[in-house]
Amino acid sequence: MQRTVYFISDSTGITAETIGNSILAQFEGVEFDKHRFPFVDDAQKAERAAHRIKALHLQSGERPIVVSTLTDPVLCEIVAGSGALMLDVFTPFIGSLESELGTRHSGAVNRSHGLVNFEKYEARINATNFALSHDDGIDVDYVDADLILVGVSRSGKTPTCLYMALHYGVSAANYPLTDEDLERIELPPRLRPYKDRLYGLTIDPLRLAQIREQRRPGSRYATLKQCRWELEQADRLMRQAGIPSLNTTHVSIEEIASKIFDRFGIERTMF
Amino acid sequence: MQRTVYFISDSTGITAETIGNSILAQFEGVEFDKHRFPFVDDAQKAERAAHRIKALHLQSGERPIVVSTLTDPVLCEIVAGSGALMLDVFTPFIGSLESELGTRHSGAVNRSHGLVNFEKYEARINATNFALSHDDGIDVDYVDADLILVGVSRSGKTPTCLYMALHYGVSAANYPLTDEDLERIELPPRLRPYKDRLYGLTIDPLRLAQIREQRRPGSRYATLKQCRWELEQADRLMRQAGIPSLNTTHVSIEEIASKIFDRFGIERTMF
Repeated sequence: MQRTVYFISDSTGITAETIGNSILAQFEGVEFDKHRFPFVDDAQKAERAAHRIKALHLQSGERPIVVSTLTDPVLCEIVAGSGALMLDVFTPFIGSLESELGTRHSGAVNRSHGLVNFEKYEARINATNFALSHDDGIDVDYVDADLILVGVSRSGKTPTCLYMALHYGVSAANYPLTDEDLERIELPPRLRPYKDRLYGLTIDPLRLAQIREQRRPGSRYATLKQCRWELEQADRLMRQAGIPSLNTTHVSIEEIASKIFDRFGIERTMF
Repeated sequence: MQRTVYFISDSTGITAETIGNSILAQFEGVEFDKHRFPFVDDAQKAERAAHRIKALHLQSGERPIVVSTLTDPVLCEIVAGSGALMLDVFTPFIGSLESELGTRHSGAVNRSHGLVNFEKYEARINATNFALSHDDGIDVDYVDADLILVGVSRSGKTPTCLYMALHYGVSAANYPLTDEDLERIELPPRLRPYKDRLYGLTIDPLRLAQIREQRRPGSRYATLKQCRWELEQADRLMRQAGIPSLNTTHVSIEEIASKIFDRFGIERTMF
């Protein structure tokens, strides 16, 4: 069974898409064909969206599903005129919050993913620059790192550092274990002062070999034997040094980041 | 007025936080002190969370607010025992989707931010590597770029490229306009074959000078005069070459990405 879903918003549509994906993931047997309508902030755009939704309905015979974060009731009504099933994300919660807080909601166009605060924005950008300049473990100073990810090449350190920086403003550095570290089963001296900020990433050898093969086909670096040896040595090193670690093979970047924050008690919220 | 908010989830908590932030942004007069409880997936963890929420309630006298994406009713009830205002994100929508789709929801622990699909995951990682290796405009081949961001140094190109890669698997390259380009008011020849994939980022001169001053204090590069000249020349170049552009000064990375996708008709959905 396939159904078409539209994420409609007067802003980026990120909230509609995030909650929509979470809810739809609860319906495992259904395949969803997903589309976005961001920046629907006037009647004309709402009508254009409603028109497209209606056309699809007539064509496929299946009723489309709309996940909406529109706050203007006039625009909501125009879109609802398409005949789609409307899932209005905000409405169920606004009433109970209004009575709890004793105040009315602003009804303003959704600004949650707009830029509000230069200071917070700067924290994201600075953390991203930090991650980029602390990515290869060479000539790097770890004094200002909130945390340092340790692991073999291609275990997922760089995307995780970038994600934590972009979304949480966390300054995460990245130390790729060298052959020397792995042979000695020893942390390099310059990491030792920061032992309480280290976190290890590991991965299944087969998966690592696949990833490396894509990058450097036919190389020794990509052989299963080499991957296995590196991961075993890294595992020993992390256990001996008492570094917590996580196998990233079946885990998304979002989940890796959440688990690391949980472990270090970092309570920073998303931007 | 300040109120405490907890984002509670049996997984990363990203959905709870995203929708929670959007709803709370509607209440402008209230300051929210936000906390996360991710990975609450058994009764013991739910009880620990409920205990902390209750303790805070007793201490502050203000009723805490809980934004929850818990799917297990037993865990929900334990957390509700804290006496907090419960905003249960999924409940309002599950019923209408069940009757629309004629099927029951799985009730499985929320996996929307877990890793499901290696192929999609790889697209994110490959796009991130692409963004990293196509970041400085030097010796770069643009053939495989989905789009190319053009602008002066520090106009926001790199974080935007990384965000689009990490979240949408879009391969975005980055071309920093050189002094030569700006003097000639001319696109470099190697960008010309890709004119329909170019998008310009611009920024207010004062803001650019602030950002550059942080990076290279006291440099000519950071003077308002230099920033103004570069931005004026860049603006002329973009207008002459017919490159669409966006001023990023008051716009978040999320919004920049959404606007660019909207312009190019890129309908790719988030991972």
